[in-house]
Amino acid sequence: MKTVSNHKSSAAASKNKKKFVYFFGNGKAEGNAKMKALLGGKGANLAEMMSIGIPVPPGFTITTDSCAEYYETGKKWPVGLEAQIKENIKKLENALGAKFGDRDNPLLVSVRSGAAVSMPGMMDTVLNLGLNPEVVQGLIIKTENERFAMDSYRRFIQMFGNVVMGVNHDEFEHVLETKKKQVGAKADTDLSAKDLKDVVAKYKEVVKKATGEEFPTDPYEQLKKAINAVFASWKNPRALKYLELNDIRGLLGTAVSVQAMVFGNMGDTSGTGVCFTRNPSTGENKFYGEFLVNAQGEDVVAGIRTPLPLDGMAKTWPVLYKQLVAIREKLEKHYRDMQDIEFTIQENKLYILQTRNGKRTAAAAVRIAVELVKEGKLTRDQAIMRVDPKHLDQLLHPTFDPKQKKQAIAKGLPASPGAASGKVVFNAEHAEDMAKKGESVILVRIETSPEDIGGMHAAKGILTARGGMTSHAAVVARGMGKCCVAGVGTIHIDYAAKKFTVGSTVVKEGDWISLDGGLGEVYLGQLETIRSTLSGDFGTLMKWADAARTLKVRTNADTPNDAEVARGFGAEGIGLCRTEHMFFEGDRIIAVREMILSDDKDGRVKALAKLLPMQRGDFEGIFEAMKGLPVTVRLLDPPLHEFLPHEEANQKEMAQVMNIPLQKVQEKVQALHEFNPMLGHRGCRLGISYPEIYDMQTRAIIEAACNVKKKGIKVYPEIMIPLVGMKKELDILKNEMIEIINKVFREKGMKVDYLIGTMIEIPRAALTADKIAESAQFFSFGTNDLTQMALGFSRDDAGSFLGAYVQRGIFDKDPFQSLDQEGVGYLIQLGIEKGRNTKPDLKVGICGEHGGDPASVEFCHRVGMNYVSCSPYRVPIARLAAAQAVVRSKKK
Amino acid sequence: MKTVSNHKSSAAASKNKKKFVYFFGNGKAEGNAKMKALLGGKGANLAEMMSIGIPVPPGFTITTDSCAEYYETGKKWPVGLEAQIKENIKKLENALGAKFGDRDNPLLVSVRSGAAVSMPGMMDTVLNLGLNPEVVQGLIIKTENERFAMDSYRRFIQMFGNVVMGVNHDEFEHVLETKKKQVGAKADTDLSAKDLKDVVAKYKEVVKKATGEEFPTDPYEQLKKAINAVFASWKNPRALKYLELNDIRGLLGTAVSVQAMVFGNMGDTSGTGVCFTRNPSTGENKFYGEFLVNAQGEDVVAGIRTPLPLDGMAKTWPVLYKQLVAIREKLEKHYRDMQDIEFTIQENKLYILQTRNGKRTAAAAVRIAVELVKEGKLTRDQAIMRVDPKHLDQLLHPTFDPKQKKQAIAKGLPASPGAASGKVVFNAEHAEDMAKKGESVILVRIETSPEDIGGMHAAKGILTARGGMTSHAAVVARGMGKCCVAGVGTIHIDYAAKKFTVGSTVVKEGDWISLDGGLGEVYLGQLETIRSTLSGDFGTLMKWADAARTLKVRTNADTPNDAEVARGFGAEGIGLCRTEHMFFEGDRIIAVREMILSDDKDGRVKALAKLLPMQRGDFEGIFEAMKGLPVTVRLLDPPLHEFLPHEEANQKEMAQVMNIPLQKVQEKVQALHEFNPMLGHRGCRLGISYPEIYDMQTRAIIEAACNVKKKGIKVYPEIMIPLVGMKKELDILKNEMIEIINKVFREKGMKVDYLIGTMIEIPRAALTADKIAESAQFFSFGTNDLTQMALGFSRDDAGSFLGAYVQRGIFDKDPFQSLDQEGVGYLIQLGIEKGRNTKPDLKVGICGEHGGDPASVEFCHRVGMNYVSCSPYRVPIARLAAAQAVVRSKKK
Repeated sequence: MKTVSNHKSSAAASKNKKKFVYFFGNGKAEGNAKMKALLGGKGANLAEMMSIGIPVPPGFTITTDSCAEYYETGKKWPVGLEAQIKENIKKLENALGAKFGDRDNPLLVSVRSGAAVSMPGMMDTVLNLGLNPEVVQGLIIKTENERFAMDSYRRFIQMFGNVVMGVNHDEFEHVLETKKKQVGAKADTDLSAKDLKDVVAKYKEVVKKATGEEFPTDPYEQLKKAINAVFASWKNPRALKYLELNDIRGLLGTAVSVQAMVFGNMGDTSGTGVCFTRNPSTGENKFYGEFLVNAQGEDVVAGIRTPLPLDGMAKTWPVLYKQLVAIREKLEKHYRDMQDIEFTIQENKLYILQTRNGKRTAAAAVRIAVELVKEGKLTRDQAIMRVDPKHLDQLLHPTFDPKQKKQAIAKGLPASPGAASGKVVFNAEHAEDMAKKGESVILVRIETSPEDIGGMHAAKGILTARGGMTSHAAVVARGMGKCCVAGVGTIHIDYAAKKFTVGSTVVKEGDWISLDGGLGEVYLGQLETIRSTLSGDFGTLMKWADAARTLKVRTNADTPNDAEVARGFGAEGIGLCRTEHMFFEGDRIIAVREMILSDDKDGRVKALAKLLPMQRGDFEGIFEAMKGLPVTVRLLDPPLHEFLPHEEANQKEMAQVMNIPLQKVQEKVQALHEFNPMLGHRGCRLGISYPEIYDMQTRAIIEAACNVKKKGIKVYPEIMIPLVGMKKELDILKNEMIEIINKVFREKGMKVDYLIGTMIEIPRAALTADKIAESAQFFSFGTNDLTQMALGFSRDDAGSFLGAYVQRGIFDKDPFQSLDQEGVGYLIQLGIEKGRNTKPDLKVGICGEHGGDPASVEFCHRVGMNYVSCSPYRVPIARLAAAQAVVRSKKK
Repeated sequence: MKTVSNHKSSAAASKNKKKFVYFFGNGKAEGNAKMKALLGGKGANLAEMMSIGIPVPPGFTITTDSCAEYYETGKKWPVGLEAQIKENIKKLENALGAKFGDRDNPLLVSVRSGAAVSMPGMMDTVLNLGLNPEVVQGLIIKTENERFAMDSYRRFIQMFGNVVMGVNHDEFEHVLETKKKQVGAKADTDLSAKDLKDVVAKYKEVVKKATGEEFPTDPYEQLKKAINAVFASWKNPRALKYLELNDIRGLLGTAVSVQAMVFGNMGDTSGTGVCFTRNPSTGENKFYGEFLVNAQGEDVVAGIRTPLPLDGMAKTWPVLYKQLVAIREKLEKHYRDMQDIEFTIQENKLYILQTRNGKRTAAAAVRIAVELVKEGKLTRDQAIMRVDPKHLDQLLHPTFDPKQKKQAIAKGLPASPGAASGKVVFNAEHAEDMAKKGESVILVRIETSPEDIGGMHAAKGILTARGGMTSHAAVVARGMGKCCVAGVGTIHIDYAAKKFTVGSTVVKEGDWISLDGGLGEVYLGQLETIRSTLSGDFGTLMKWADAARTLKVRTNADTPNDAEVARGFGAEGIGLCRTEHMFFEGDRIIAVREMILSDDKDGRVKALAKLLPMQRGDFEGIFEAMKGLPVTVRLLDPPLHEFLPHEEANQKEMAQVMNIPLQKVQEKVQALHEFNPMLGHRGCRLGISYPEIYDMQTRAIIEAACNVKKKGIKVYPEIMIPLVGMKKELDILKNEMIEIINKVFREKGMKVDYLIGTMIEIPRAALTADKIAESAQFFSFGTNDLTQMALGFSRDDAGSFLGAYVQRGIFDKDPFQSLDQEGVGYLIQLGIEKGRNTKPDLKVGICGEHGGDPASVEFCHRVGMNYVSCSPYRVPIARLAAAQAVVRSKKK
């Protein structure tokens, strides 16, 4: 009933005028937690908290709609917005008995951004708004705290000057530092009211000089400009980059929350802090956070002063701490997820300024999800949805081999777990450049800021000298699943000299260091890493995922070792065993080259005979490792020239080894040269031209299968023919293969079960899948090539324009990483539909890179594939993604 | 009613036993002309002629079915065939009162091949079958003509020995020539009965020596072996090659007609001939043919003796000639098409042995079709179907420029019209080899035989020293639309010395000669040719075609000259004007290279500004030439590296011209190198990366359009964006273009109508055509690239395997020449359907090579395209093909 009446009243409202502003105060709110799209995460949660009795300062939220309209209409406020803001300011004044711009009882407000999705630190905020020379006098009189009033005033000018008026942050910092030096103050808090008055005066000069304008004194003008600045910050480069990196699309804009200020900077009875209801790094169910006495919120987040652990608050303010713990429990129970909470204490009174689902490491996400189920707060299905499959990567990624000797040169905060080695870089852009060249880098900064986000993303790990567990570096690194050691106070960084020192050790740019983000330790040099396994909570979650999913997960593996690793990660078979990799090993390449250089079939057959026992051995190893799970072997795929050297020096070497003239090698290379090798003589086209190659491979597979079966091990080979475009190709090759297979069966006096199927990687194959299914026992979509051909993009060449394509929004994502569902996906759907029209029970899988991409895995589930196949380390990702696909489809 | 009862009785027959043999005799026949698939063309027409009262010797036809079963069951006769043959031999004996193998009144038969489609000379025939030492004595007694009997016997042994027993033809010829020399005989007819008896004896020795077997004497054994030989000839290399060259597929096999022999070799009251009811070379409605006195049919066709023109028969045998003329009229009226008739005169009695629709040149086909309409024998629709569009090529192809001086060195028969120059080659295989290398060759032979068919196809023209207008060379050349001068008696060919002489002139292999097949003249050297125009009957037929068709035909033209030629051939617009060709001309390439070498946009814009007036001029010329017809201009498509030299010498030259270091050129070439340029940075991807290129081109097009419109000429530019895969690409480029266009309109103070559309040449574009159609005003399918990508074949590289693919039947035809309707066609259908779902009136065309291929044009009609676009000389082909598509769809 409530929903209906809500709906009615909002419909009625929209008839009259559009609602741009939602009020919260006096324990009531016009919004709620479900309205994130309209009110932003922050605004929606403030409304929600207000409704459930959390002590939240009153305020109102301007909708994301308003921001969208602002951009649509050429940066003008939608009609009605200004009036609604004024109306709500009135409400706020009434709620607090204070008045905006009043010199006797002034109302000060914060103006904060907040999109539907949390983008910490990416957009702008202005605090202490409403101050001017007269109001600050009123504040002094009202609070009897001149120092506080002047501190708030200088903070306001600094923030507004920077955010709204575009004055460089450093210019303000310079004034502040100069004053501190002048009076011998160590921290900002050591400055007196008089010092701060000087600072305020200087600040105003800085603004005037930088902008040619006076600092505005009319509070409404301040408010209007601050709201515009928040709107503008929606499209600043940092925010855009964040959206891109996190694949966030389709948001309307940012909401703007205007809220009565509460002050943590009113002296030693005041403070501010950030806390997590559980440990965001490990997931441990332990209250966790940091606070600062006599400070405003930005001091904690920006890492300017290193804050104290939350435990300390129990001693400093035991009553308030107890109250905070109660709120922790209330909020977690309410939201059924780990919360990231900002609070402020003003003269011994606790206020909550924000709550949101906390960012966490993958390990923490897994542990929290599993424990919430055990605590009865979540269902298993819900738990499955709580972990981003992409982040599992972190858990599978290396840790340092405990057997090697290592001596930490420094220790800081274990801000984001993981192990990483790389070359030291002190600048974010430089880090990006080096990473592009394929170098491993560790970004080392005194502290990080939102501008560094690109470099942080590019780096293997992040090391900072300042800042706590909730500093920018720590939060962002955890979000990225990037190893981070923060606040290593013992290192001294010299940006100019491009080095850092720790004790007597000097580390220069380009030197290798290693970080252990779980221990918070820093090592010299490049350390050996080992892989982790699935166990504990991770294992539990994966078990739940396996129970939920219907899509099988196989792996792409070419060696017994890969096969074993993948089985350990839960692979249910091999979906792609590439035989060409085997052709390069050791002496084999010589036989392969002999085959290629042969002028006739006899010569090729002779050379291939040398390869037979080696290939057979490979397959025996793989079959044994897979212990009865199905193994899909793809016959030779790449063009033959890939097996010949293209550099003259190597050609000479080859000629010498094979005892043939150099000219012969060069002639063959020339003869095999192709303009577009991707579309050339490869795949089953080789099988048609040189049947003896596939003959040998077929024989090797089936002989190996027989040999392994003889040992009592089950074996299910599935032979896969690549690059089929026409049914007849498949027919010709299949018939030849069946002949060989039956011959081997006769020779061995035994049989094994096998399948012969085909890759669907040429658009024509998908388009004529009904025909091809007549001859194929299974389909495996090779989405790498299918993407290349369907899109007309060569993966090797697309680099020159693909970046621009993603940036200009032509693609949402790199189509080689995440399946182009609209185009390539359509082709796949068509192929499956047509294939199953012919053979209703046709087994269908995918074996391109996309098999390990969660969005693509969900697609594969949706279109009814039987399995995906991906690299061993992505198997758990695919398992979880497949389970999420089921849960998501249940919701619909 | 008749059909129904026929159906019933044949169904009943099939219940009891399958009918393999169809009798004809005594004015009645079990078959008819519609049963070509079952009885072959020859058998069906013999039955038909028998029924309508033409004097046909009686006989029976073994079905093509029998041949198919013969192959299916491992070369065994189907059960029942032998019994049915024996039964029919009995019938034949009864009809004639003679007996097979009888020494008193022997029945002799011919055994002839005949598939559903006429394949002249490709399969085998045995005449005079039934002779043995005893029977020949009976024949002598019966005919009182020993010479005739022995001539028939030696012909039988020669033909059976060669066709059935595989003895080399030359060995028999050697015996015959030796005998002729020995007795001083000029022609075969000069040999006496005794001479021929000797020849028969020697022939038997030749057979014994070559095969180790005696020549068979049992007539039934002879018959059985001859039938098997005809079955076998269905798969001989000549026949297979003929089927391949003529794109004939799906035939069951050959039928075998066994017919009572009539003898043209019974002396001067006997003879044999071949005639056409109209001139097969020009189409003139004049009875036309050749005959030989005292000869059997193969003497005429094989060109062994040069026969006399048919006119002469009016004098030699006036009564018979009159009878033949009456038959000519009867048959043409009956079949409503020009007939190719074989006849034999036995002792002043006329027999017709075969009739079929005559092969003809394209010019003759056109004239005959048009005149048959005028004579009221055909409808216009039927006339349209009578000309193979592919053959129109001949009519549009060059003739020698009449202005140049030329002196014929020899004159022969104008066997097949056209003009051709090429290097002299004396051997068919060699001609094929040279043609493969791209050389123009003229095949020069004393006479041609079916073995030469590959070389004839490869040659530009054919010259023979012997043989008439119906000789093998003449018939085949006309069928191929190949220029041929036959029977040039004055030239002396020396195969061994690889030269021919004519008077004192010696022409060696590799020397250039020219042939005029319309005049029958031979010239030295390479002559200039000119193009022909559409007029006369051709014009009339094309008018009918235009009235019938609904599909528009445009042309691919890049220059005003091409545009004018195409308008002359009836093009209704330009469907593809490639702008990149314009970039290569003269100084432009320097500006283009300047643009490519620029490091920034400013440099590119500067270089492009130089190109603008030139491009504008190009478009003005083309718009003026097209006089108000629509012109589709494709913006720049190829990758930029195509405009840079790849050879070091050329790079040096370029560096010098542009006054820059060689290294800079080489670095750029290196930077632009791509692994798969087909799938690389080209098409609209260039437009996205370097908007200034398309800006310049758009401006040039619109400025040109305005300038031409100012002159009072109508102009309809259609701007086409290549290589679009995603709607957003099109959106971005289109918006930029519209901005430029409106700017030009403002500058010029005027507007022109224009469209902006896209190529559909990337599979993804077809798959998402519903989306793309939202932004495109027209679609043009670029089937060259679409084929490459849908099939994963690089046209430049597929040569290494495509031949084998066509040969092994994986493709019916080269998919780059004739659209792969199943695969690529499906994509096109999908694209049109989806595009028109969004925009029901979306204009859709095709601009790949396929636009001039008749089968592909029919496909385009069927799927509802608005137009095809092809090269200027293929415009008439497309017009006719489009008309045929309509007529064919009416039939269904």
